[in-house]
Amino acid sequence: MVGIIMGSQSDLPIMELAANFLKTLDIPYELTVVSAHRTPERMFDYAKNARKRGLKVIIAGAGGAAHLPGMVASCTTLPVIGVPILSSNSIDGWDSVLSILQMPGGIPVATVALNGALNAGILAAKILGSGDENVAEKLQIYQDTLKDKVLGTVDDIKAIHPNLYDL
Amino acid sequence: MVGIIMGSQSDLPIMELAANFLKTLDIPYELTVVSAHRTPERMFDYAKNARKRGLKVIIAGAGGAAHLPGMVASCTTLPVIGVPILSSNSIDGWDSVLSILQMPGGIPVATVALNGALNAGILAAKILGSGDENVAEKLQIYQDTLKDKVLGTVDDIKAIHPNLYDL
Amino acid sequence: MVGIIMGSQSDLPIMELAANFLKTLDIPYELTVVSAHRTPERMFDYAKNARKRGLKVIIAGAGGAAHLPGMVASCTTLPVIGVPILSSNSIDGWDSVLSILQMPGGIPVATVALNGALNAGILAAKILGSGDENVAEKLQIYQDTLKDKVLGTVDDIKAIHPNLYDL
Amino acid sequence: MVGIIMGSQSDLPIMELAANFLKTLDIPYELTVVSAHRTPERMFDYAKNARKRGLKVIIAGAGGAAHLPGMVASCTTLPVIGVPILSSNSIDGWDSVLSILQMPGGIPVATVALNGALNAGILAAKILGSGDENVAEKLQIYQDTLKDKVLGTVDDIKAIHPNLYDL
Amino acid sequence: MVGIIMGSQSDLPIMELAANFLKTLDIPYELTVVSAHRTPERMFDYAKNARKRGLKVIIAGAGGAAHLPGMVASCTTLPVIGVPILSSNSIDGWDSVLSILQMPGGIPVATVALNGALNAGILAAKILGSGDENVAEKLQIYQDTLKDKVLGTVDDIKAIHPNLYDL
Amino acid sequence: MVGIIMGSQSDLPIMELAANFLKTLDIPYELTVVSAHRTPERMFDYAKNARKRGLKVIIAGAGGAAHLPGMVASCTTLPVIGVPILSSNSIDGWDSVLSILQMPGGIPVATVALNGALNAGILAAKILGSGDENVAEKLQIYQDTLKDKVLGTVDDIKAIHPNLYDL
Amino acid sequence: MVGIIMGSQSDLPIMELAANFLKTLDIPYELTVVSAHRTPERMFDYAKNARKRGLKVIIAGAGGAAHLPGMVASCTTLPVIGVPILSSNSIDGWDSVLSILQMPGGIPVATVALNGALNAGILAAKILGSGDENVAEKLQIYQDTLKDKVLGTVDDIKAIHPNLYDL
Amino acid sequence: MVGIIMGSQSDLPIMELAANFLKTLDIPYELTVVSAHRTPERMFDYAKNARKRGLKVIIAGAGGAAHLPGMVASCTTLPVIGVPILSSNSIDGWDSVLSILQMPGGIPVATVALNGALNAGILAAKILGSGDENVAEKLQIYQDTLKDKVLGTVDDIKAIHPNLYDL
Repeated sequence: MVGIIMGSQSDLPIMELAANFLKTLDIPYELTVVSAHRTPERMFDYAKNARKRGLKVIIAGAGGAAHLPGMVASCTTLPVIGVPILSSNSIDGWDSVLSILQMPGGIPVATVALNGALNAGILAAKILGSGDENVAEKLQIYQDTLKDKVLGTVDDIKAIHPNLYDL
Repeated sequence: MVGIIMGSQSDLPIMELAANFLKTLDIPYELTVVSAHRTPERMFDYAKNARKRGLKVIIAGAGGAAHLPGMVASCTTLPVIGVPILSSNSIDGWDSVLSILQMPGGIPVATVALNGALNAGILAAKILGSGDENVAEKLQIYQDTLKDKVLGTVDDIKAIHPNLYDL
Repeated sequence: MVGIIMGSQSDLPIMELAANFLKTLDIPYELTVVSAHRTPERMFDYAKNARKRGLKVIIAGAGGAAHLPGMVASCTTLPVIGVPILSSNSIDGWDSVLSILQMPGGIPVATVALNGALNAGILAAKILGSGDENVAEKLQIYQDTLKDKVLGTVDDIKAIHPNLYDL
Repeated sequence: MVGIIMGSQSDLPIMELAANFLKTLDIPYELTVVSAHRTPERMFDYAKNARKRGLKVIIAGAGGAAHLPGMVASCTTLPVIGVPILSSNSIDGWDSVLSILQMPGGIPVATVALNGALNAGILAAKILGSGDENVAEKLQIYQDTLKDKVLGTVDDIKAIHPNLYDL
Repeated sequence: MVGIIMGSQSDLPIMELAANFLKTLDIPYELTVVSAHRTPERMFDYAKNARKRGLKVIIAGAGGAAHLPGMVASCTTLPVIGVPILSSNSIDGWDSVLSILQMPGGIPVATVALNGALNAGILAAKILGSGDENVAEKLQIYQDTLKDKVLGTVDDIKAIHPNLYDL
Repeated sequence: MVGIIMGSQSDLPIMELAANFLKTLDIPYELTVVSAHRTPERMFDYAKNARKRGLKVIIAGAGGAAHLPGMVASCTTLPVIGVPILSSNSIDGWDSVLSILQMPGGIPVATVALNGALNAGILAAKILGSGDENVAEKLQIYQDTLKDKVLGTVDDIKAIHPNLYDL
Repeated sequence: MVGIIMGSQSDLPIMELAANFLKTLDIPYELTVVSAHRTPERMFDYAKNARKRGLKVIIAGAGGAAHLPGMVASCTTLPVIGVPILSSNSIDGWDSVLSILQMPGGIPVATVALNGALNAGILAAKILGSGDENVAEKLQIYQDTLKDKVLGTVDDIKAIHPNLYDL
Repeated sequence: MVGIIMGSQSDLPIMELAANFLKTLDIPYELTVVSAHRTPERMFDYAKNARKRGLKVIIAGAGGAAHLPGMVASCTTLPVIGVPILSSNSIDGWDSVLSILQMPGGIPVATVALNGALNAGILAAKILGSGDENVAEKLQIYQDTLKDKVLGTVDDIKAIHPNLYDL
């Protein structure tokens, strides 16, 4: 139900974070390489056929002058999530962030943080969960887990820095 | 079905663009002011009750150190779209863009371009249309309209600059 | 021989500078609107057929997340010159500059300065003049004119600030 | 008397600098993890009860889109010191700096330098010392120590670079 | 009790916002021009005598390479609040922000947002109110007023955009 | 036919990428060091004689305040490609990028990405191939190779992440 | 004794500030247009003959990719002061600042603030006054005047904001 | 004759580059630590007595919010050269660059590149050489050496990349 694409195999260690999250929630996904600049026809085919192939959301990650998320978004009515990736020879990630985020009026890309593929996976689940109570419940459990992890560190820190705090 | 909130009434001229787009597609929305910093309880109530009140997507716009989209996202399983707004005394919009975009792992905000409330409206529709063919068809018509508008300008320009082009 | 395209009619006042320069040198050009995001098929057709239609160079201008120059470059063996344009809601032009300049290895775009369409026209002429002495001579005359204009201002300034300089 | 909170346990190596300074001056403090995004209720409770629990100043550190200092400041009349932290996947720290510094009118956060937790501890002491001569004297001694350390390096450097200087 | 200083008379329209806020809360203040670069002795005298003259907090505003807040902080144990000011020929305010915020370890400046003199005034009151319940109560009333102003705009907006919202 | 120059021998590991690409396509090139600041006469001689020596395109790489590409462009009618190089003590490459890209009207430099010497080599070939079908065919083969490499990674990734995708 | 040059007549309103300051101190100067890119030979001649023509200091102002100060510095042993100028189509002045400031090791340019031609004039006087007591005395008088101007505004401000201050 | 000061002993590895250059030219210098923030009185004494102690130029290096060069410049009629230093917790050096470069009208600092202490030493020599032919000759020899070093690398590179070049 979620298509995860990236501009280059070198983006895989980041983009896997999205796939792994979806796997945790039992949300089916596909993951592959689609390059806007090196395989433009493949990109167009992917984007144009995404909806009829049954996809509900597309996650697209790319670095540098990152055109993949925006170009895919221009060829589908599905929501497209863009993941800016810090690649080699990037200028601190600004190129990727701005070329995904600053889309012109008419063609939105739902941009997440630099290297934020985990959040892209969660956002895809939130989009699916918008109309699906089952997914929404799983997301609520996930958010509760985040909370529990934070609370779990409170005692660790108290052991190092004993103080008067006891909320 | 779509909740549109903004940190200040001064954001209205931008945020109306989202509302107006949804109106065009006959997608019901609500629009109000919810300030993270000046009305924190109201923000929490809004975020926590959004799903049970029947909302499917939340669009949140704010300027400067813009905490509204991220804080709302932390209290709901609904997808939250963030609109960075160029407010007075902003440092060229960077503050708003980065404080909405760069959310930590676990709490995504679907960020659009600076002042990109029109795109936030379209993205909300794409999210609803992900599982709703009726909305998806309207979005396809909208995208075709964008194309037609571009093609309409081709002749205008040809009149000014007569040349050999005739694709 | 030179194709000048832009993402939106609003880019015309900038992009005309390229056309006007080429006209001065009697270099034939065509000028039209081709939007990467709103007319992706048209863009692909334009790029793929450019060489066989007799074009030698393509100049592409766009603002914001500017994908037009890079996407056109990915579909042709012709040299593509990219003109970043400062559009409304841009973040000071950085978005356009970086999304045109920072192309990945394999797909170059010859990027000029922000709003630098005049220089794009001159660069196109330099490319044509690389193998054409006639054009090269015209370019030499143009460069001599630039020099003469500077020297012409020397006396104006001397009139305002009389001093010992007399190189 | 000083509450030190941070968004994540990974911020501890930086935030300890504030605690260690306060310990040196015998100023009581508490130190714990409070996440704006993962434990929003805990954050609200902490902020709202801080004054009645006897705190005089709150130091809050966070990275990325750092909402903790600003949100805490919105729920208390105590002065809140914000420490931007350079976290992984940050864009050079700009996200954290701007989302803490650029608070809207009405809700100030006393922001210190990137990773500047030592200065946050000193600033907390200066705030307490504003109306407490005992703390102020200790601060004066600390400032004198800084001066002595600088003067101590003068001879070291003179040994390496013998020169005419003898102020 | 609060000293408000600025590097140049041209900073007055911004810095008055701090003074006006303090006046509202009946907190005594003084306001004058002290330039780090043009009147260095005056600056040193001001900083060194501030505590014995009865000041509790200093607010210092400056533009460009803004050295006033940091230099004053180096000569007093009082808390110093720095206000970056967007002056002419500034590079978008970055110079002022960074030269106030990024103080080295040992000498903190409590920095507020660009042109954030109102917040500097509020922060000064929060510092005084840290140990003074009377000031703290006034601050609570001020924060409630901010909330009421936001709620007051809810109906205005509902009148323009009638919708289903009724929290 | 292509002159490759660089400001310093330390630029060689980057600039070789241009040379190596041209070698692959059997395009003759020369490669040497020409420093704008340390050998200004040599730079002028190189630029002024480039055309009569038979060069068709010049590729110039430099770091920091990079004046070489622009100064060479001012002394020749040949197209000049500029390669910004990330050198030590650079401010993240911004200095090199901006001092090559932002040329004034009249003197264009065809700028490629930071450290983008491979793309400079490809762009030089595209310029030569603009009027030379033989080179153009080789470029088409190169672009097809890029596509094949991407497609080759599809199966690798499928092996790691078995999924439903089968375009 | 001071040569003031600028890349374009449009820089005159800024660069006149340097000339006017020198006139005030009775320091002889010349002022003219020398463009690095449009009149490279003139620039070289100017730089190479500056010392033998009796100049002691050169002030060079330019905007955008500003190569004039650095190129002049490479052809003379005289100190060169660079003035970054905010020109049209500049990216907020960053291009000019960085292409003047970030000179490689071996060829310094004494850079002043954006549009800081007044400071360039003062710096030239300080350089001349380094070995000339007469000029140094005039500079001391000028610095005293700056101080007096600040003190003169103290009473103006006291009239608007009557307070307890009376240093 | 040249005073070299730095804000902290940690700046020594950079600032030594200035000293070493001056040593090469037999120009006497002194080198020590003077901190604007930790030893403000020492800084004032240093700056005020510099001229009468026989100094001709001051080189001041500092990192972060670097106030040393500007504050020293405000207390002397000698030319002051500022060296921005990339210190730990700096935001990529921008803080140091801008707080040294962007001095207000009236108080110039001759700023060199980030970590550019070598250039500061050369600039000091150029200032001394402005009125001293002996120093000027040494500088000319140094510039010729730079040229020779570049020419020396030409053959090295030719050995690696044999080509037709033979200027």
